[in-house]
Amino acid sequence: MRPEDRFVERLRETLSGREELLVGPGDDAAVVRLSAGPLVVTTDTLVENVDFLPGEDPGRLGRRAVSVSLSDLAAMGAWPDFFLLTIGFPESASEDLPLALALAAAKRAEEFGASLVGGDLSRSTEIFLSVAVWGRPCGGVVRRSGARPGDLVFLSGWPGEAAAGLAVARARAGGDRSEGRIWAPEELAVPDETRLLAAYREPEPRLPLGRALAREDLATAAIDVSDGLGVDAGRLARASGVRLVIESESLPVSPALQAFAELAGRDPIEMALEGGDDYELLFTTPAERAGRFADPPAEWGAPVRRVGRIESGEGAFLEEARGLRPIDDLGFDHYGAGP
Amino acid sequence: MRPEDRFVERLRETLSGREELLVGPGDDAAVVRLSAGPLVVTTDTLVENVDFLPGEDPGRLGRRAVSVSLSDLAAMGAWPDFFLLTIGFPESASEDLPLALALAAAKRAEEFGASLVGGDLSRSTEIFLSVAVWGRPCGGVVRRSGARPGDLVFLSGWPGEAAAGLAVARARAGGDRSEGRIWAPEELAVPDETRLLAAYREPEPRLPLGRALAREDLATAAIDVSDGLGVDAGRLARASGVRLVIESESLPVSPALQAFAELAGRDPIEMALEGGDDYELLFTTPAERAGRFADPPAEWGAPVRRVGRIESGEGAFLEEARGLRPIDDLGFDHYGAGP
Repeated sequence: MRPEDRFVERLRETLSGREELLVGPGDDAAVVRLSAGPLVVTTDTLVENVDFLPGEDPGRLGRRAVSVSLSDLAAMGAWPDFFLLTIGFPESASEDLPLALALAAAKRAEEFGASLVGGDLSRSTEIFLSVAVWGRPCGGVVRRSGARPGDLVFLSGWPGEAAAGLAVARARAGGDRSEGRIWAPEELAVPDETRLLAAYREPEPRLPLGRALAREDLATAAIDVSDGLGVDAGRLARASGVRLVIESESLPVSPALQAFAELAGRDPIEMALEGGDDYELLFTTPAERAGRFADPPAEWGAPVRRVGRIESGEGAFLEEARGLRPIDDLGFDHYGAGP
Repeated sequence: MRPEDRFVERLRETLSGREELLVGPGDDAAVVRLSAGPLVVTTDTLVENVDFLPGEDPGRLGRRAVSVSLSDLAAMGAWPDFFLLTIGFPESASEDLPLALALAAAKRAEEFGASLVGGDLSRSTEIFLSVAVWGRPCGGVVRRSGARPGDLVFLSGWPGEAAAGLAVARARAGGDRSEGRIWAPEELAVPDETRLLAAYREPEPRLPLGRALAREDLATAAIDVSDGLGVDAGRLARASGVRLVIESESLPVSPALQAFAELAGRDPIEMALEGGDDYELLFTTPAERAGRFADPPAEWGAPVRRVGRIESGEGAFLEEARGLRPIDDLGFDHYGAGP
């Protein structure tokens, strides 16, 4: 048996079957039984040297690849059902690498009741993982385009922590390329370092929050913040044909991010705006429904805070004491430099 | 607007909408409306230097990426509805490259009534294209596992032509790495060269044939020959728990392949067994239904011929005058060397 067939065999042994999965891994395609209704589909890819550092732990990488795709479903108010996984890996890698990646990915998806049903393997110079995931809306589909003037803007979690975590991981791997002053990761308190690294390596798709937004019809628009709060706020504003204003003093800065920013000589607000990889939800809600977010339930898994407002106009701006500043361009550029 | 957002805008302008597509490219995920019933899902990836040569024409590459994924659906007796496209491309490439790839892919899928609904872009060292496609069974789902002793084995098209086409493309690009004698592509007649190159570069997914197999309940098992007739015959045999015997004298050798084999000093039967990238259907049928293949309708797009038989036992073999020879291991190894 060839390595690629052995891979499928070993995977099949480990995966739990689902009744709706009529044909799983090991045939030309997977077959899934579905009820009628809308299907929500998305794909995301992590590429070595672009989306993660060389030498990343395969288990963490497999989990992260699934999490970032699930984050897209969360932003649509959908819940995942099943996914396909494509892995490219170099000849120099162990034959166990794709299996470790796939099992970690499958286990991560299982946490949300979703199954790995198939995929593809290929040789490549650098490692890449591509996840395509299918799910069902939990209520009305939440799009980027429904924000209206007067809506309030909410954000989950702690923006900028993942970017700080990446800087720490890079420093630990031999060199931080951040702007600012020279620093050593040892100068950071261990709990802060642990928290920031986790924000980068173990993002939590905000599926329960997205489900609540859809089920309770709380959001007029939503987007997951993957490339940076600035650029993703700009995308929501453009899709909705409105102006999105983030109020600087409402933006949360976690103590860990604050500590990192002081150490590295950076502005935590800029890190929140520019930092990618947060996978938090940015959404808009009519003012009369904002009360629902006064005391977010624990199952949402993250704080949810009002960070701004929607006005007529266009673009995304940060409101500071000195006025409005455009932020549409602040964030990770997939066409640009790597992690 | 960022290049990646501009990419989506330009794509949207060109794509035709479909009624079942509730949310298309440009949001966090696509949303499609579905009727109840089984969904058939698969993914395939082409990586530069592994699955195609550097400098390949983007239009041809985009088409080919879709065709090879559709071939998997054909082997299941399914018809495609929608697909996602992921593109990795190097910084040195033109910004037009992903658009050219995506438009060619979308156009190719449209030929079969399937639509591009989303995807992902990333920087990468080498170009890669990953297609995730889903569709609906045209009748019963055709699996790899249903072949029974006494069934006859059929094959569409001309196995080995794609491998010869790759050798020609490689020779044109500066060096053939085939075994055999030194040869120059100029020694091949132009019509033969054209035919072989097309077999490699423009594979035709056998969707109409697969649909007929499913609708008319003609096949007990099927697989698409992507890695080589030998290894894929072995996979069908293993999945079905039977022995698959290919009869050497029944294997078709096209005049173009014959001409190439003579020129390059190779055995055309070996090329048919080892050559990947054919994307023909290998399937089994009960003897009493074999009459349906006596005069294949033109819409199947390729000849369909009996090439062997199923027996009790295991493994895939070639029957020659001197006896049976195992062929399970003859074919392209995705873990091995490149194109």
